Order: sequence, then C-alpha cells, then structure tokens
Amino acid sequence: MSTRVTVWHEHRHEKKNPDVAKVYPKGMHEAIADHLRTFKDMEVRTALLDEPENGLTDEILKNTDVLTWWGHGAHQEVSDLTVERVYKRVHEGMGLIVLHSGHFSKIFRKLMGTSCDLKWRESGDKEILWITRPGHPITEGIEDHIVLEHEEMYGEFFDVPEPLETIFISSFTGGEVFRSGLTYQRGLGSIFYFRPGHETYPTYHNPQILRVISNAVRWASPSMPKGPIKFGQHKQGWLEGSAEAK
Amino acid sequence: MSTRVTVWHEHRHEKKNPDVAKVYPKGMHEAIADHLRTFKDMEVRTALLDEPENGLTDEILKNTDVLTWWGHGAHQEVSDLTVERVYKRVHEGMGLIVLHSGHFSKIFRKLMGTSCDLKWRESGDKEILWITRPGHPITEGIEDHIVLEHEEMYGEFFDVPEPLETIFISSFTGGEVFRSGLTYQRGLGSIFYFRPGHETYPTYHNPQILRVISNAVRWASPSMPKGPIKFGQHKQGWLEGSAEAK
Amino acid sequence: MSTRVTVWHEHRHEKKNPDVAKVYPKGMHEAIADHLRTFKDMEVRTALLDEPENGLTDEILKNTDVLTWWGHGAHQEVSDLTVERVYKRVHEGMGLIVLHSGHFSKIFRKLMGTSCDLKWRESGDKEILWITRPGHPITEGIEDHIVLEHEEMYGEFFDVPEPLETIFISSFTGGEVFRSGLTYQRGLGSIFYFRPGHETYPTYHNPQILRVISNAVRWASPSMPKGPIKFGQHKQGWLEGSAEAK
Amino acid sequence: MSTRVTVWHEHRHEKKNPDVAKVYPKGMHEAIADHLRTFKDMEVRTALLDEPENGLTDEILKNTDVLTWWGHGAHQEVSDLTVERVYKRVHEGMGLIVLHSGHFSKIFRKLMGTSCDLKWRESGDKEILWITRPGHPITEGIEDHIVLEHEEMYGEFFDVPEPLETIFISSFTGGEVFRSGLTYQRGLGSIFYFRPGHETYPTYHNPQILRVISNAVRWASPSMPKGPIKFGQHKQGWLEGSAEAK
Repeated sequence: MSTRVTVWHEHRHEKKNPDVAKVYPKGMHEAIADHLRTFKDMEVRTALLDEPENGLTDEILKNTDVLTWWGHGAHQEVSDLTVERVYKRVHEGMGLIVLHSGHFSKIFRKLMGTSCDLKWRESGDKEILWITRPGHPITEGIEDHIVLEHEEMYGEFFDVPEPLETIFISSFTGGEVFRSGLTYQRGLGSIFYFRPGHETYPTYHNPQILRVISNAVRWASPSMPKGPIKFGQHKQGWLEGSAEAK
Repeated sequence: MSTRVTVWHEHRHEKKNPDVAKVYPKGMHEAIADHLRTFKDMEVRTALLDEPENGLTDEILKNTDVLTWWGHGAHQEVSDLTVERVYKRVHEGMGLIVLHSGHFSKIFRKLMGTSCDLKWRESGDKEILWITRPGHPITEGIEDHIVLEHEEMYGEFFDVPEPLETIFISSFTGGEVFRSGLTYQRGLGSIFYFRPGHETYPTYHNPQILRVISNAVRWASPSMPKGPIKFGQHKQGWLEGSAEAK
Repeated sequence: MSTRVTVWHEHRHEKKNPDVAKVYPKGMHEAIADHLRTFKDMEVRTALLDEPENGLTDEILKNTDVLTWWGHGAHQEVSDLTVERVYKRVHEGMGLIVLHSGHFSKIFRKLMGTSCDLKWRESGDKEILWITRPGHPITEGIEDHIVLEHEEMYGEFFDVPEPLETIFISSFTGGEVFRSGLTYQRGLGSIFYFRPGHETYPTYHNPQILRVISNAVRWASPSMPKGPIKFGQHKQGWLEGSAEAK
Repeated sequence: MSTRVTVWHEHRHEKKNPDVAKVYPKGMHEAIADHLRTFKDMEVRTALLDEPENGLTDEILKNTDVLTWWGHGAHQEVSDLTVERVYKRVHEGMGLIVLHSGHFSKIFRKLMGTSCDLKWRESGDKEILWITRPGHPITEGIEDHIVLEHEEMYGEFFDVPEPLETIFISSFTGGEVFRSGLTYQRGLGSIFYFRPGHETYPTYHNPQILRVISNAVRWASPSMPKGPIKFGQHKQGWLEGSAEAK
C-alpha cells in the first residue's frame, strides 16, 4: 500500500533571495518531493503557505499519511486553524517530519510543550551528523556519519523534551553540538525532528540527507489499531463482562 | 534551604457537594498543605481559583519552587494568562505536581502536547497502586503497593507522551489499569503526574498518598544551573575563543 | 524481501505434562510458527533446546533476522556458548522477541543487566492486556485491549530497566498489574518482551496474541546501516579530512 | 544524614607513567576524594584494585551509598567476585558513577548489556561538554558548557542502551561528538556515566568537573522503599485480601 506524503513548505525565501533561488530553482519542497517520488510506494504532493488554507485543507490532511514541514521566516503567518488541524491529524496517527528551522513552527512547539529555542550562527560551519542509533530504521543505509561542508550552526541547549530516541548528533566547526535527529510520539502519531536544511545551502540535494528523510517517512507512516480509541465514561468494569461507554 | 510550595486548588466541589465538604471540611488543599507543613524545610501556601488572578500572581509564582495542582469541574475558568505564567515558571525550573483530574487542566495539556484523555467510572472501585520504580525518590518509604478502598476509576489508554519514568501503575476492581505516577521534564522544570484523589473519597488523608506527594515535592524542587540559558545568535564559535551572543 | 524467523522453544513441558500436550499437540513452537507461516514474506524455522547446539548453530543464527524465545523450566540447560552467540547476533541487529517465562532466560537477563524477577501465581486469573501505545507497529490491528480468560499471573515490581516504550499493561483477577509489552534496544538489535503464554493455557492459539507476535516480528526486523560500525582508534579527526582507523 | 562514598580506583597508571604521577601525585582517586571530603555530609573512603578483594569487601560495599569507578588498563584484573558484589549492591540501591575509561569495565558492561565500545584518539583535543539537561540535579551550578583544553577524544557511536537522560554532549577539536553524561537505572540503583578524565590531563583538578561529580554523588544517593522487594509466588490475589508470599 502506498504512503501518501505531503511536503509542506513556506516557500518565501526562494522568492526573495536570489541565492536561495539559485540553489533550489524549483523551491526546496520540490527537491524533497522529487526524491520521494522516486519510490513507487509513495504518493507525493506538495502544499505551500500561500495556497488557500495554507495548502492544508481538511481533505488534504485526511489523505496524508506523513507530513514534512519546513518553515523559517513566516511561522506566524500559518493560521491557528491550520495548526489545530495538523495537531489533530498527528494525534490520529499522521506522521510528522519537522525539518531545520521548523523547530520554531507553531505546530512543533505545540506538540513539544516547550520553547524549542536554541543557539545559532550563519557562518557556513562544516556540520558532521554522527549516528547515535545504528540499527534504527531512520539510519538504514547511512554509514557512520554524514558530512555537510557548509550549514547554519544550531547549538545546545535545544529546549525540547527528552526524546524517545536520539538518532543523530551534530558537531560544527565552531565546537558546538546539537541533537539533530530526535524521535517523539504524540497521540497515535510519530514525529521526527531532523536538523539540516538551511535555505542557502544545497543540503536537500545531498543523497544521504534525502535518504534519511525518506527513511523517516517510512518509519513515521501510521500503524493503526483496530477501531477508535475508547475514551470517556465506562459504566461497567471489564472483569464483570460488558463495558461499553454510554 | 526551604522549599517554597504553593498548593493550588479549584475549591468548588467542597462548596457545592456536602459529601465532599464532609470529607474535606477545610478543603482538599488544606489536607495536602497540612501534611507538607509538618516538614520544617517546606514553606507552604495555598492558592485558589477564585482568588484574584486565580491566586497565582507573578509575585507568588516567582516565590514558588513547587506548585501542586488539583482541578476538576472548572478547568475552563482558569485564565489563559494564569496558564501562560505557570507554563513560563515551569520552564524556568519550578516543579509541578499534577493531581488526579488535573490531567485535563489547561496547563497539563499545554505542557504535554496531547489531549490527556482517558477512560473513567465513578463507582467506588478499589484501587491498588503498584510501585514500578522502587529506588526512585518519589517512592521512598512506600512498601510495594498502596491500597485505596474506594476511588474513581481511570483507565488506559491515557493519552500522554511516553514518560521519562513510570513510577506507579494502578489496577481497579473493574479490571482496568492506569499509569498513575509519571515523570516528565519540560524546560528546566520537573513534572509529576499522580492519579489518586477523587473529591468524594478521603484519599488525601491517606498517609501513604501524602508521603508520595511530599516525596514528589522534594524531587521536583529546582536544581538550577549557573546563570541564564544562552539561546540566540552566537557570532563566534567556541573553538575560536570568544562566543558571546550579540 | 523475506524476514527469516527462528522460533526457539524449550519443548520440555509438552513431553512431561499431558495437559500441555493436549493444548499444544505439536508443541508450543508450532502454534507460533504456524501463524508466522501464513505470511508470504516470512521464512520460518524452529529450533529446540535438545537439538545439537541448542538448535542455534552459528549458521542458523547468521540466517535469522528475528528470534522468538520461550523457555521456562530449563533455562540453566541453555549453554553459555549459545547465550553468547545470541547476544552477539542481537548486537549485530537480529531482533529478539522474548515470550512469557523467557523473562528468566539467561539471554534476557544478560541483555537487560537486571534480575528480571517478578511476582507470580498459577491460579487461572483472567488477564486483560491494555494497549498503552496505540499507533505503535506492535499494536496494529488490535482493539483497545485483549482478554485472556485464564493465564498465570505476573505482578510488579518487574525488575527490568525502564523500557523505551510500554506497549501493553496487564491486569489480573487478583488485582495485580504487569508491564506486559516492553521495547528495548541493545546494539543494533530491537527487543520486545511479551508476557502472555503459560504452557497450560491456549494463549498461543488466540488470534490477537498471535497478531501481536507477528507485528513484533516485523517491527524487530533489522534496519541496517551501510558498512560496519566504526569502533576503535582514529588517528585523525574528521574536521581535518582523513580519519580512518589504523 | 551522611552519604557514604567509596572512590574506587585502578591506580596503576600513576605508578608506571611519570607524566600521570606528575599530574596526580597522590593518585587520581585522591583528587576526587579530596573534593568530596569538602562536603560535611559526605563520608569518603577510597578503594584500590590492588587491595585485598580489590578493596571492595562485602563489609565495605554494605556501607557504601555511592561508588565511583575509574579503571583503564586493568579491567580484566578485577575479579568476577568483585563484579558480582558491586552488581548486587547496585541492584539493592547503591549509586554508581562510572568515569571515563570505566566505560569498558566489567561492571559497566554487565549492567548495560552492551559492548560499551566507542571511537577514541589520544591527541590532546579540546573538549567542550555542553549541557543538554539544564535543571537536572547533576548540572546544578554549571553554566552552559565546560571547556577542557586537552582531553582524550571519545566519539560516537557509543554502544550503550538509549539512556534515561542525556545530560552532557561533548564536541572535540577533531569534529567528533560523544554523549558524555548519561543516566541509567538498574534495580534500585542509579547510574551516571561521565566521560572526562584521561589520566595524563588534570581533568579531576577542574572545579566544574569536580562539581559535576559531587552533584552526581548526591543525585545517585539511594532512596529506599519501605521493606524488601516482594518477588516470588503469591498464592492469593490482592483484591481478595491477604496476599503474602509463601
């Protein structure tokens, strides 16, 4: 069965900054989407901030198994209604892959319950992402570490909850470190935060980075229980036999 | 040094329901506060929903090391400003002990990033709380399990994030189970959710339950790093020497 | 690609106890293996304690992606060499599903670093396994909870490390609780402990229990990084360019 | 009440290598012990590999609340009996602080259930330890990060189980990273692994490193439940009243 992926993108930097447009002539979202489209078992669409309803109608979200999210300068322009919709869908089981500056998106902060703040510097540091969980589905096919010649630096303390699993940790030329691959679960949904992807660098053209993203999409694809979650009042106990909610 | 504890309480059920008033003539908050006052190293105050600013002014929160929270019928009457203040203080390091129906409070849901929903039944089930982490500071002095002859039932699935530690798990007469003692961390703050405490039962007169609460207050008391958290831009790397944020 | 599963079994109780033989005329291992054989993408073999090398030669383990383990009365008869082999293979990425009284097996205790002790009673309690992680691949297709009319009771404290994830918690007629579905990771290997399966009850004929086991086999199937893990001395740093171990 | 600390040390390098003896004229153990002795509420003793019973008799361990462990070249000379004793005491609640090359000690590997292998290089890299859990008792009084001008490099992948909490992550001049402060729990005991402390560098004279060690000793000090852990057979259920093990 296919995994239905929606690649959400802010898509503003490409329009304002010629350097970004040069690196991603079709937009950052298309670099990611094009990679995912190489897999026959993925159905890929894109959704953009400036589309109606931020590109994320109820209908589209209902038909999305995994959503990837890249935003940076315009987090506040994502409507609260969109955030509520995505939040609800993650709880229903939709996977969420939050990329780079998406750490400060409304949706990630709402799901984490923290500020998601960090240290940063734009000076083209070399980044090395070290695998700290070999054997995890998200690191399949990756060898020991990934080198990105130039990236924006993100440094600890990264104000997020203790993760379920720390998959990657980055070092930077400046001597900083950052937990750059983290897994979480909220409701029925699986969440992966993945650090790299500053708009002025060709990070989403790097085959290993793309491999991590497609691995993560597979990992975050929903595994559903049978029937709805049974919350609420249950007038009889299970040891007594019947126990339906009224 | 003293731990400054604020016992927050909704304090509505005692006024409306004579059965509750009979069990807690001074209010549920006073049962908890009286226990904490027996420790010389705790400074205890109470704060109530119907006090100005929900009893939680900036000044009071600033002088609170650990906040305990019991609410049930009036979660929506807690102002969003109060919730923001408590949220901010937890991130700054204030401990938070969320009791029973506080699972549905605005503040707990905001910190968890989940619905915090569950199954429930008011039929006086026997509850047995089993220790699943002997050796944890919160279970100090407790022996194997705690029996409560009558309590409200809460059942799984409890829609919270995977906890740092599962300290207690309850069984109920009806055959349900519930993770009734859970630890989390958000920002610099430690959070403990503790299930028991329905208003019509004398749960907060039980010496073992009170012991768990005072243990949790000690455990959640802040441990502060030196100086503020350094977020934001850092123009130089640490390997190069200076690295102050500008 | 196929998942190669080896169902390991002690296979002693069926020979000694006619009650067990009646419930599992072909042996408990065949009940599990028969279920797994219904999946076209699983290659299933069995291995028994009394076979040469405890049924687990280097060759067989090398060709096993996921091993399931049921043992009870004869843990001490498993050779230390076999335990070392399985331990090594788990670290290389082989999945391990430990069933019921396998909690006291040499291999599980060695991987956990704890005694794995617990409370128990053989009196045919009803067991209810409640899902505490809906949305996890191991609970796919299971609805809310599983009822087993009669099972051996296992009770907390279960002396294992805090798990990565608590997937199921059981209640018993006697009022005990038990974390009956737990995930761990050791080296590259994924481990799932699953409680039910006392030899005198038809637990491994229950379709939901079998579904959990096949779900777990899929979940524990290896996800391999590219190339071997690079441990040891590395004379040059990665920022300097070359960094091969000498 | 006092915390009784035993500082265990291999104490071989100081005798063989004049460079080590110059940095630690009284031995590395005394540098650590002298710091801990500055606290009135700590009773400090040392224990050495070459003392009878490796310095860790039953009597000494029985009277130890927290044990710190530094070993490097002579892990294999620690007797299996000593390892069993320490293992048993950790499970009974004794705290364990494993330092630097202690990662390869028999006791740490036995408790972890993994190889505890890693990358390494002796070339005097600068190490920066970044706090990833501000607010944790172990980071109390430490500001953002600790710089060690020269240390041995340890790099990921560090083959340990996913920790309860990642407290520090190090970067090295060579661009490597390492999870250098990790917490675990085994039985009733709390375990902290802390990376720094190569014998040729004055790391245990650094006030911040010493502060982390004394913080960790306080954090790992036992919190005991009332009475022994109740394992074994329980012929009656708790809902029926009596439930003593026979």
